[in-house]
Amino acid sequence: MTLPTLLVLDADPPPRLGRLTGRVRVEHADASTLAGRLPSADVLLVWDFTSHAVRAAWPGGGPRPRWVHTASAGVDHLMCPELTASDTVVTNARGVFDRPIAEYVAALVLAMAKDLPRTLALQRERTWLHREAHRVAGTRACVVGSGPIGRAVAGTLEALGVTTALVGRTARAGSDGAPAVHGGEDLDRLLAGADWVVAAAPLTARTRGMFDARRFGLMRPSARFVNIGRGPLVDEDALAEALRQHRIAGAALDVFDSEPLTPDSPLWDVPGLIVSPHMSGDTLGWRDELADQFVELYELWAAGKPLVNVVDKQRGYVPGP
Amino acid sequence: MTLPTLLVLDADPPPRLGRLTGRVRVEHADASTLAGRLPSADVLLVWDFTSHAVRAAWPGGGPRPRWVHTASAGVDHLMCPELTASDTVVTNARGVFDRPIAEYVAALVLAMAKDLPRTLALQRERTWLHREAHRVAGTRACVVGSGPIGRAVAGTLEALGVTTALVGRTARAGSDGAPAVHGGEDLDRLLAGADWVVAAAPLTARTRGMFDARRFGLMRPSARFVNIGRGPLVDEDALAEALRQHRIAGAALDVFDSEPLTPDSPLWDVPGLIVSPHMSGDTLGWRDELADQFVELYELWAAGKPLVNVVDKQRGYVPGP
Repeated sequence: MTLPTLLVLDADPPPRLGRLTGRVRVEHADASTLAGRLPSADVLLVWDFTSHAVRAAWPGGGPRPRWVHTASAGVDHLMCPELTASDTVVTNARGVFDRPIAEYVAALVLAMAKDLPRTLALQRERTWLHREAHRVAGTRACVVGSGPIGRAVAGTLEALGVTTALVGRTARAGSDGAPAVHGGEDLDRLLAGADWVVAAAPLTARTRGMFDARRFGLMRPSARFVNIGRGPLVDEDALAEALRQHRIAGAALDVFDSEPLTPDSPLWDVPGLIVSPHMSGDTLGWRDELADQFVELYELWAAGKPLVNVVDKQRGYVPGP
Repeated sequence: MTLPTLLVLDADPPPRLGRLTGRVRVEHADASTLAGRLPSADVLLVWDFTSHAVRAAWPGGGPRPRWVHTASAGVDHLMCPELTASDTVVTNARGVFDRPIAEYVAALVLAMAKDLPRTLALQRERTWLHREAHRVAGTRACVVGSGPIGRAVAGTLEALGVTTALVGRTARAGSDGAPAVHGGEDLDRLLAGADWVVAAAPLTARTRGMFDARRFGLMRPSARFVNIGRGPLVDEDALAEALRQHRIAGAALDVFDSEPLTPDSPLWDVPGLIVSPHMSGDTLGWRDELADQFVELYELWAAGKPLVNVVDKQRGYVPGP
């Protein structure tokens, strides 16, 4: 009996797949070898989730894996028309990042409310300067993106006393355990009333560039903006200008149009902007969680059972409550 | 009819007491004039809650106000044996600072878990360096001080998924809405198991210096310590040494032995220590809240009704659930 071939688009450190030993033939690829190895693979694990190699290699000739799993929540970096049109099933790491990202957003919101960046700057200057901070309880947030990450963010902010509205593609009523979601038609109104705006949407043709000069102009001068979704959701120049002109009070970006941000990026020193290196979901042990999640999906696949976390390739995310 | 005399130990800005206009004769004092004006005062409002002037002036001769209210949670700065032994009622600002301080502690805990100070330092250097952060959910906290502030801190940490133990002077069982409290006999054991240790106790003879070299030695190398209570709860030299020797992983102090911290203090640049200027409870509008709270107490006093927030002068705090 021939073992299935699992092709891993590698990153360092590699995934711990010991539980699959003897059950699959593991091959490895990087961006330069991926195109040549795709035709012999049954399954592709996109472990290097920062790579755009899949999108580049997939349209070439030959057979293609029947299943592609990416160790990320977003799939924008790998989707291409040929993959969308194919019969290949795409799954993602839905679930692994939800709580860590929610905590990260809470950290940013509280740090901005309590003026912590300035406290640290004053500490470097050995300067004691008392200020009055903001309360978080009683404020309002608008979380854009109603998937598991957006919902976890909303839940954590609500636990801190923040009244939070979730905005998705289409409105849906709340039900047991699932909060109500506003449709896109409510977005501008909710932005105008929010103290905190959090971008947690997948990157799709509909969401690209949605946070632009017009939308920053709708926000309150006291509003703060956080992006833990994908960089291209935001017009970075418009955000920098909104901060420089004090049209909004602050922002934090964990994701960027182009990553890693280069030393000459103007974003590093925009006033009121916190820059972090795409780490919101990455907590100690996260790589093992991602590998374990893949192994669990593999068990389903090997048993011929339906996969979970299946991406709607047209929409670009896993639909559902 | 003679109006009662309300003596205000002033700070800038002064309290807004407009609701008492025409009902009291307001006099003002500072540290240099307090002793001379105490004998003619019916009520003393310690608005400058950073001052130790009351403790200095009170033992002098002459009549004394029947009621002293301090616009602070702690009363350590004003108590002296003569005040303790007198019939004068002392009240405090219990309640005003609970939620703001709880949010501030959450901000510090999350900032340390997510390595935010280093993120901001790397941003200044225009350096992209991905790290793995800690999760807060699933960690353990020990909050020392079971009054309203400690309980609010515990409640907020619990809302973030942190299993939190409260430690007070004496153990008590939990009841409706009031969490269980450990007695001091459990403190060392709880410190040894905590990821987060929060000092939220009043400063009394029993609590002074309680966080010393021995107790920092009990904590885990990964533990982080936060003090939002009173500076002298902590042996600052022992804390600095514990941080320099990596016996604990980090700390944040909002209160100090001597405030304001002077530019030559060695604490400003202890590695892993966040220094903030006694601002944890101070949110926009807090001074008006403190003044309103005093006016409400005044209404009780003027009507001959029992006051609330009455300090047990022997213990140095308001007892009770």
